[in-house]
Amino acid sequence: MAKITKRSEDYNQWYIDIVTRAEMADYAPVKGCMVIRPWGYAIWERMQRALDDMFKATGHSNAYFPLLIPMSFLEKEAEHVEGFAPECAVVTRGGDKELEEPLVIRPTSETIIWAMYKKWIQSWRDLPLLYNQWANIVRWEMRTRLFLRTLEFLWQEGHTAHATEAEAIEEAERMLGVYRRFAEDWMAIPVLTGRKSDAEKFAGAVTTYAIEAMMQDGKALQAGTSHYLGQNFAKAFDVQFQNKDGQLEYVYATSWGVSTRLVGALVMSHSDDAGLVLPPRLAPIEVVVIPIPKSGADNAAIRTAAVRIAEPFGDQVRVKVDDRDNVSPGWKFNEWELKGVPIRVELGPKDMEKGQAVLVRRDTGEKTPMAQAEIAMRVPGLLEEIQRSLLQKGRERLAASCHEADSYDALKDTLEGPGGFVFAAWCGSAECEARISEETKATVRVVPDDGEASGGCIVCGKGPAKRVPFARAY
Amino acid sequence: MAKITKRSEDYNQWYIDIVTRAEMADYAPVKGCMVIRPWGYAIWERMQRALDDMFKATGHSNAYFPLLIPMSFLEKEAEHVEGFAPECAVVTRGGDKELEEPLVIRPTSETIIWAMYKKWIQSWRDLPLLYNQWANIVRWEMRTRLFLRTLEFLWQEGHTAHATEAEAIEEAERMLGVYRRFAEDWMAIPVLTGRKSDAEKFAGAVTTYAIEAMMQDGKALQAGTSHYLGQNFAKAFDVQFQNKDGQLEYVYATSWGVSTRLVGALVMSHSDDAGLVLPPRLAPIEVVVIPIPKSGADNAAIRTAAVRIAEPFGDQVRVKVDDRDNVSPGWKFNEWELKGVPIRVELGPKDMEKGQAVLVRRDTGEKTPMAQAEIAMRVPGLLEEIQRSLLQKGRERLAASCHEADSYDALKDTLEGPGGFVFAAWCGSAECEARISEETKATVRVVPDDGEASGGCIVCGKGPAKRVPFARAY
Repeated sequence: MAKITKRSEDYNQWYIDIVTRAEMADYAPVKGCMVIRPWGYAIWERMQRALDDMFKATGHSNAYFPLLIPMSFLEKEAEHVEGFAPECAVVTRGGDKELEEPLVIRPTSETIIWAMYKKWIQSWRDLPLLYNQWANIVRWEMRTRLFLRTLEFLWQEGHTAHATEAEAIEEAERMLGVYRRFAEDWMAIPVLTGRKSDAEKFAGAVTTYAIEAMMQDGKALQAGTSHYLGQNFAKAFDVQFQNKDGQLEYVYATSWGVSTRLVGALVMSHSDDAGLVLPPRLAPIEVVVIPIPKSGADNAAIRTAAVRIAEPFGDQVRVKVDDRDNVSPGWKFNEWELKGVPIRVELGPKDMEKGQAVLVRRDTGEKTPMAQAEIAMRVPGLLEEIQRSLLQKGRERLAASCHEADSYDALKDTLEGPGGFVFAAWCGSAECEARISEETKATVRVVPDDGEASGGCIVCGKGPAKRVPFARAY
Repeated sequence: MAKITKRSEDYNQWYIDIVTRAEMADYAPVKGCMVIRPWGYAIWERMQRALDDMFKATGHSNAYFPLLIPMSFLEKEAEHVEGFAPECAVVTRGGDKELEEPLVIRPTSETIIWAMYKKWIQSWRDLPLLYNQWANIVRWEMRTRLFLRTLEFLWQEGHTAHATEAEAIEEAERMLGVYRRFAEDWMAIPVLTGRKSDAEKFAGAVTTYAIEAMMQDGKALQAGTSHYLGQNFAKAFDVQFQNKDGQLEYVYATSWGVSTRLVGALVMSHSDDAGLVLPPRLAPIEVVVIPIPKSGADNAAIRTAAVRIAEPFGDQVRVKVDDRDNVSPGWKFNEWELKGVPIRVELGPKDMEKGQAVLVRRDTGEKTPMAQAEIAMRVPGLLEEIQRSLLQKGRERLAASCHEADSYDALKDTLEGPGGFVFAAWCGSAECEARISEETKATVRVVPDDGEASGGCIVCGKGPAKRVPFARAY
């Protein structure tokens, strides 16, 4: 098994090597599309299950809305059509006939969903509607990268309808919190949170909230967004409800989503030059047991011992015994390292003599001999320790990649140098933001609620200014 | 809450009433498309979970292949393109530009998957590949019906690759068995199984196996198919492997799928004039507890008792306490009957005096008073009893709808009369089959492995003939 490219040599190639060689994804025949292979999909399935449980625990139900949207629907919300129409895939023929009205493949589902909400919402009694869907999305992207940006991707999109502005804003903020907790507790990725600037917000939103993660190469990655949509879509689709006072009012909305991009973020966060490093809670396999047979000897006992080690885990831990006999143990070590399995259990003839096995942590490489009978009892704690440790290291990396810049020159220098999140004072104007982003390729990642800057804007010098993180981003 | 149409008045309207009024699905703005609402989607989610577990237990992994397929791929397999091209939705524009080659939205994924298998399969060591995907599909259908036939639908499609014909046939038959068990054990729907005739088989298959269910109106419904594809797709996409003797050979294939059509089958199987009847294992809510407050009295005790009844179920039973105060208990009874919840627990002031509640079975209407403290202990057994009883009734309905016809006239009469599966002798020729299907609108549903007929074909009189079930079908 050939080595993957080192991060220090070519970060981008290192990422592609891991994704393709760990068989997480492959390039599809249509340019910009990808195939998600079983190892990548199993990680996504674990993400789905965890998120879905969190959505249901916060009162949401799943539904499914159509893939195809009449082009005219997009045009009902001015900012929305401007943002999305240029990225659409358009169906012009169906069943061997030209269509009277072209249909777009959903680039996001606000319009089709609000067309339905119009049918379902009449009174305050019908509110709130707290719906989510798991779906595929097509946006005609030109510069694509496996998982991070693809022409078609998988995601979930929540779409909620509320009687009051306060309740809708609370919902948008609640879901931002769900994403932050998911990133930290499951992906072991700490994030910055806050609002997007007007230039960066969702086409059709009043406010876009985001979680922002930092990759190892100093570039940021927007990992999830939650939008307060105000009454924009309710007005576009004429969705009014009778409030408790008997008056008609437009409905307030939110939408929020995360996508298979998260799998890319996971790869870029914890992995090393040997391949993927998975946090245990998202690992399709948490423990792999590898018997190391002695050539020429009868290895039945060693195989039996491997199975005995795995058996007591039951449903609690995802364990696999790799007893293939057409590849060597060394090949297996490399493969499971590349695929990021958190714990490897090695079982050789000398271990057998001692009634032990050797546990190897993927994240640290640490080797611990352990009595075979104790393994099932001690592994759950070790997995928790690995999960905690990855988050802790993530926190340290994030802290180390946050820098301060007290002038525009300092901002430029730091972006060119270490990169990362560079905090600097910004007056909030679109002009200063546009100049910085043009000249440095960095954007305002989020605008935190707090963070009054002591001085004026690093571009125009005016105050009051806010201390916001700038970064180049995926 | 207005009553739904009776089956005896208008079977089709009865079906539509249940689906729309139980809020399972609604019509989408694009003709032929549907929106799956939370109640319908929750049933589909339970189906997905059960099937997915069965697929994984039989060694399959999930993956995800692209939605968009180059038109030229479809053309590589002659029968396949003939069968599917006329039903395709075609994307001709993307990102504001005309595409050089039109892309079709997948009507099924054999072609895109075998284009990828070409990259992944070189040696017998790479086989078998046992993949499944959960995805949306578009077929440009003109005559649609919610769940049963829609322009876009959700499904799973398994696609496997094997080194030998025997292994591939075994796989196709194994998955037919999985579908049969799922239909019986989860949906409580007994089915006929067997091969499809050449006229009815999948475009590109060597053999199509199917499970066939019987609806209450005497029409059959194909509920799942499993195809042995031979080397057809391997040849179309040039997928060869080196076998153990070092020789190149084409790979053998299967594919198999079930769709959201199953939700329609479920509605049509068990339901009655009061609405949906759900088998407990697929019910999003198995037990609903409804407090019946006394007007003007303090009803805190009755609400507390309702919660106390629900609490001990824990994660084992899906229970809901319906304590809404803006609708009456009678309204709630009707709503949960319409939605098919298997057990309703009524709790009124008189029940409180006796420390009891009344359990009402959705399937039989049977009412059983029960001590409140005993409910959580006795309900799991009762749910199993309901599940068994629905399957038993399904078996009786299936048996009662199977008829024999010893002549073509008898076949016609029975199809016009009670309908159902009418078993008659058929010589196996496409000519006789086509004549029957043209003149009676009935088709050969499956060709069982056994079942030599004693006489000759009911059309041409020739032998040897097989005893096969004819039916009109959805």
